[in-house]
Amino acid sequence: MDRGLIISVSGPSGVGKGTVLAKVKEIFPEAGQSISVTTRNPRGEEKDGVEYYFRSKEEFKELLSNGEIIEYDTYVGNYYGTPAAPLKEMSSSGRDVLLDLTIEGSVALKRYFGEDAITVFLLPPSFKVLEDRLRGRGTEDEETIGKRMEQARNEVLRASEFDYIVTNDDLEAATDRIASIIKAEKLKSHRQAHRTETL
Amino acid sequence: MDRGLIISVSGPSGVGKGTVLAKVKEIFPEAGQSISVTTRNPRGEEKDGVEYYFRSKEEFKELLSNGEIIEYDTYVGNYYGTPAAPLKEMSSSGRDVLLDLTIEGSVALKRYFGEDAITVFLLPPSFKVLEDRLRGRGTEDEETIGKRMEQARNEVLRASEFDYIVTNDDLEAATDRIASIIKAEKLKSHRQAHRTETL
Repeated sequence: MDRGLIISVSGPSGVGKGTVLAKVKEIFPEAGQSISVTTRNPRGEEKDGVEYYFRSKEEFKELLSNGEIIEYDTYVGNYYGTPAAPLKEMSSSGRDVLLDLTIEGSVALKRYFGEDAITVFLLPPSFKVLEDRLRGRGTEDEETIGKRMEQARNEVLRASEFDYIVTNDDLEAATDRIASIIKAEKLKSHRQAHRTETL
Repeated sequence: MDRGLIISVSGPSGVGKGTVLAKVKEIFPEAGQSISVTTRNPRGEEKDGVEYYFRSKEEFKELLSNGEIIEYDTYVGNYYGTPAAPLKEMSSSGRDVLLDLTIEGSVALKRYFGEDAITVFLLPPSFKVLEDRLRGRGTEDEETIGKRMEQARNEVLRASEFDYIVTNDDLEAATDRIASIIKAEKLKSHRQAHRTETL
């Protein structure tokens, strides 16, 4: 059986990653997604293994020291991390996984999973367009926009660490490009070898 | 500017390579094709550089010893080879090239051009289907069909030496797969690096 691909998409804030990923999921509805591990307490109806895996700080640190957390961050005193085990299981069972990760997260994913991971950097058509989009949200002041633009310029320098670079000049075109990448990756000869054996 | 890709498609006799390649060319009408070098004399209206590059045996041998012929074969006392220079020129000028090569030809192309070359092995859905197709042509006797099937079984063992393996179970699907491969290869980060630089 074909192993599933672990595909992550990263890009600067405002590039439209969420919208593109939602469109890609429409094309690959069977693809799984990652559930983060967190040390914060469940709120309301949240269930373990649905919104998050809820773990104690001790458990999280043990996962971390066992190399079971691919990347993590802290927010308001709690840890949030991407656990490796569910991704391994989905890939082994032949299921693709689509991930929305930070730049660091994608780089760590590639280091962890090697050729089972496919990393895509989503690029804005220009910095001007990115700035216009950030401003168009109307939720951030000029100082925040300035900081995000500076961060974007730094992040774009890391695009070469990714497997693929896709320009998001148009939602349909960007979606089609990522779909082509996923289709092509499945056709690589090392993933198709079993077909010649069973012919 | 993006370098053009040198894409070759190979597969066993009867797999439908010519039909699939014609369909792929409809999607990439701007792609160039290779013109062979031959030592046979021009016939009728044939012009040098159109149907073939016509060269003397001495000239051909010189090209060969200079490493300017990627792969060659002999037929009725004449040489037929794939020259490297036109492919280099098309690739450098940003033009893609689509090639119909033998298994050996694709392997030699990959050795010659490295990552500028993309090799695709076209696989029949089953040996049964391949045999039916060969028989359906009605042009070959049972002995020839038997030999072609034996050859096909040996050729399929070499599929893992190619970059991609595409099953030709359906003309439209196989065409779409090869188109996805070409689109995805263009999005590889080492081919897109200039985009982040000029952003």
